[in-house]
Amino acid sequence: MEVDVIIYDTTLRDGTQGENISFSAKEKLDIALRLDDFGVHYIEGGWPGSNPRDREFFELACKTDFKNSKLAAFGSTRRPGIPVHEDQNIIALLESETPVVTIFGKTWLLHVGIMNNTPEENLAMIEESVAYIAGHGREVIYDAEHFFDGYKDDPGYALKTLEAAVSAGASYIVLCDTNGGSLPHEIEAIIDEVKKSREGTAQNLCIGIHTHNDSGLAVANSVVAVHKGAVMVQGTINGYGERSGNADLTSVIPILALKMNKNCVDLEKLKQLKRLSRFVSETANLVPQSSRPFVGESAFAHKGGIHVSAITKEQRAYEHMLPEDVGNARRVLISELSGKSNIEYKAKELGVELGLNGYDSTEIATKIKSLEQAGYQFDVADGSFKILLEKLTDQHKPCFSLESFRVTIEKDKDSHCKSHATIKVSGEDFEEITAAEGNGPVSALDNALRKALAGVFPDIDDMRLVDFKVRVVDGNAGTAAMVRVLIESRDQDTVWRTVGVSEDIIEASWQALADSVMYKLSKKENGNSN
Amino acid sequence: MEVDVIIYDTTLRDGTQGENISFSAKEKLDIALRLDDFGVHYIEGGWPGSNPRDREFFELACKTDFKNSKLAAFGSTRRPGIPVHEDQNIIALLESETPVVTIFGKTWLLHVGIMNNTPEENLAMIEESVAYIAGHGREVIYDAEHFFDGYKDDPGYALKTLEAAVSAGASYIVLCDTNGGSLPHEIEAIIDEVKKSREGTAQNLCIGIHTHNDSGLAVANSVVAVHKGAVMVQGTINGYGERSGNADLTSVIPILALKMNKNCVDLEKLKQLKRLSRFVSETANLVPQSSRPFVGESAFAHKGGIHVSAITKEQRAYEHMLPEDVGNARRVLISELSGKSNIEYKAKELGVELGLNGYDSTEIATKIKSLEQAGYQFDVADGSFKILLEKLTDQHKPCFSLESFRVTIEKDKDSHCKSHATIKVSGEDFEEITAAEGNGPVSALDNALRKALAGVFPDIDDMRLVDFKVRVVDGNAGTAAMVRVLIESRDQDTVWRTVGVSEDIIEASWQALADSVMYKLSKKENGNSN
Repeated sequence: MEVDVIIYDTTLRDGTQGENISFSAKEKLDIALRLDDFGVHYIEGGWPGSNPRDREFFELACKTDFKNSKLAAFGSTRRPGIPVHEDQNIIALLESETPVVTIFGKTWLLHVGIMNNTPEENLAMIEESVAYIAGHGREVIYDAEHFFDGYKDDPGYALKTLEAAVSAGASYIVLCDTNGGSLPHEIEAIIDEVKKSREGTAQNLCIGIHTHNDSGLAVANSVVAVHKGAVMVQGTINGYGERSGNADLTSVIPILALKMNKNCVDLEKLKQLKRLSRFVSETANLVPQSSRPFVGESAFAHKGGIHVSAITKEQRAYEHMLPEDVGNARRVLISELSGKSNIEYKAKELGVELGLNGYDSTEIATKIKSLEQAGYQFDVADGSFKILLEKLTDQHKPCFSLESFRVTIEKDKDSHCKSHATIKVSGEDFEEITAAEGNGPVSALDNALRKALAGVFPDIDDMRLVDFKVRVVDGNAGTAAMVRVLIESRDQDTVWRTVGVSEDIIEASWQALADSVMYKLSKKENGNSN
Repeated sequence: MEVDVIIYDTTLRDGTQGENISFSAKEKLDIALRLDDFGVHYIEGGWPGSNPRDREFFELACKTDFKNSKLAAFGSTRRPGIPVHEDQNIIALLESETPVVTIFGKTWLLHVGIMNNTPEENLAMIEESVAYIAGHGREVIYDAEHFFDGYKDDPGYALKTLEAAVSAGASYIVLCDTNGGSLPHEIEAIIDEVKKSREGTAQNLCIGIHTHNDSGLAVANSVVAVHKGAVMVQGTINGYGERSGNADLTSVIPILALKMNKNCVDLEKLKQLKRLSRFVSETANLVPQSSRPFVGESAFAHKGGIHVSAITKEQRAYEHMLPEDVGNARRVLISELSGKSNIEYKAKELGVELGLNGYDSTEIATKIKSLEQAGYQFDVADGSFKILLEKLTDQHKPCFSLESFRVTIEKDKDSHCKSHATIKVSGEDFEEITAAEGNGPVSALDNALRKALAGVFPDIDDMRLVDFKVRVVDGNAGTAAMVRVLIESRDQDTVWRTVGVSEDIIEASWQALADSVMYKLSKKENGNSN
């Protein structure tokens, strides 16, 4: 596929400037692997000169094979008055060993002044930094910071900064609306002028665009830039980023691919867009924005009766595109019927027969709705959902029952908390009471439960908990708020997730923990490796 | 003030099509009064023909004096084949007794076909409905539904529908991007063509624009329409609306007023924009989106150290406008990405002197970075940050110390967990041991701590916990993962947040809880109400 527009993702760098967004190096790697699989062309991993976590990420990433994406490290030009080969930031960029380095420099004389720098030295900084890194065999992308504000202030100087980067060998010149204050018609007009200024010159200009959403226009400004000839868009998944965020790639990509017919991401991969968006919001532990265009839960949800009746006749009547093309689905916000068919579909997938013992799926759908109203979230907890379906249809055969547990947490002065748990469980032909310690009460309880069951069910040793997430479902009651716990577990073959909800975090954790073990043990019994 | 662009608010009608949005008639009136005070020109109150709640609203609203806004009722053209004066919808519109009636009609032949209607009858429906209502002395605004899709399909017919409305006496012709799928350059080109088609005709065309956000472009499409000559913008506060919502007036208005210098809303009133946005989200009981442009909590929040150091020198460096102009404020976030200058700025704001006892801010910045590496997040925890700065500079005077606590959680079979806590604290001249129960271990500990301190510090009764958030910092170690707890507390005057991090959720909660109480009590001591 010949690519018309290059997608440059900066979720891991500019995205982490967002309030409440922080990823560990390992989480960054997980996201990078997803982005690679999705097929973005460049992944900007971080700013190795600015913090140790980004350095750690590049160490991990350099040992990783990416199939589709090139990894970029980000940093500034050398500092004023310092030889380029002695600049700590430039050295850190080279040491990160990425095939691509993205350098940002100043366009706007206001900023040159703030740095107590001269316009001439600024041009030299751009040119020397780009040339030095390119000279080390790296591809260099040049981000012209505050380009549009700088251009409005002094067009001649702004163009000179671009020329410095181009002549030094930058592969792309990325025009940044750093403050997010530019309007679409300004972006269009300025890109036209930049193109005009290059007429008759030898080097072809590959223009990129990097916008911020301070005026709610980041997506539009990216789209109009491409309309005017930009061939690279920089943005982040879910538009995460400082202040009001960056251009949201979950909107930009489908617009380019589906509405402007630009080759950028494989159309089959585009069907993973919603999953990618979810993966990033889950990793950031942020609630996904339901109104988010294309990928939000509400993006194709119809409420008005007129809309619903028209849409059943003709999809185009109230949908601007097919939801499946971005991995989303149409939702009709009234009918219990849609709920029912979803549940039947899901039950089949999990191998639970709903019709047994005289139950019908409408009744089950109603019960599930009221649990979801209370905070359970079954779309991300297959394990608990399966057990629930079994319980609701009297098919559940628990392999153990809780008799009681007691967890104690003690703390003395500045020493760390100590937790231990005692637990008593029973089954058809056993009863066991035992105790264990742990890093915190849930860990102690987990350890005690495993210890109690290990004699009867040796398989439990295969399984381990790999993730544990807690979210307050309704944040308005302080420490008495409803809490949802999601647990992810795995054995050699599979991964499964379970959920618990309660005002009490230990109660919620217990529900998820018990479901998780129950799921594992029943899997064995059913001889079902799925 | 001569108005350049008319603001037409449809929060109460199109806004309520949003998922999870529903207002009582009384709540609608409250919002209408706020909109009136703010100075929008038209308030679309509802669709009296479609539901009883909207009728109730119009009964209330007609008894109310609006200072600045005209009230509009919304409904469709008459139905095919029914005389206009017998159409129930048209009758309900007149009965709502609003000075303004907004009628929507079909532009797109696809929709005409779905209704089993003919193109000619559709034109007659538009013309007769507008003329009939105008004949009753009401101002009629015409919403051309699916205008852009219809125009792309059959420009000639689309223009005829507009002509029908204009010749029948509509005051404004509002071009709607109902499905939200149009791109800015398409909107621009089509408006140009509409204007061209009217050249040489007698009636002046007052164009309005009504956009949806399915492609993340609703604000941009409104802005480019005004740039091309539209004189009315229809939208909703916070962009609430069906699917991905409508054009967000909290972005559109400041762009028009501050960036395009259009007279639309009084600039003094514009300073109430954030409050208006909050009022509507509170009334809808929806969490305000912190990244929302202009009015969100994060809209002027700075995290990167470079940004902060530049902004203290020159506001324009990283802010596209003055936050006060929309009633917002700059915030500086403390994080590992931030340098010395953020910390100095923040310390000043919190009233902590860094230079005391021989400490310097570089040293402090390094310590903070390593804590953030471990999972602390100070950008959202001012309270803990203040205490930390005091500790790091030997200025911390704790008003109590923990001697020990013990928390026990018990569960028997299917009964709910029970938690109780005992705690022993001491201070300069007191020592107290007590116990309490709670909804879960943290709640029990919270209650016990308050009980232990209430005798010595009666002020503690003023404060309450309003939010409690838990997240796993690095989710890969199962229940032994690092957990971060954020607590939000408030008293009559202020809100503050504190943070704790540990492998043990109780330990992390304790840190945040202790900081929270410490912050409250030291606030009193310093006589500092901030």
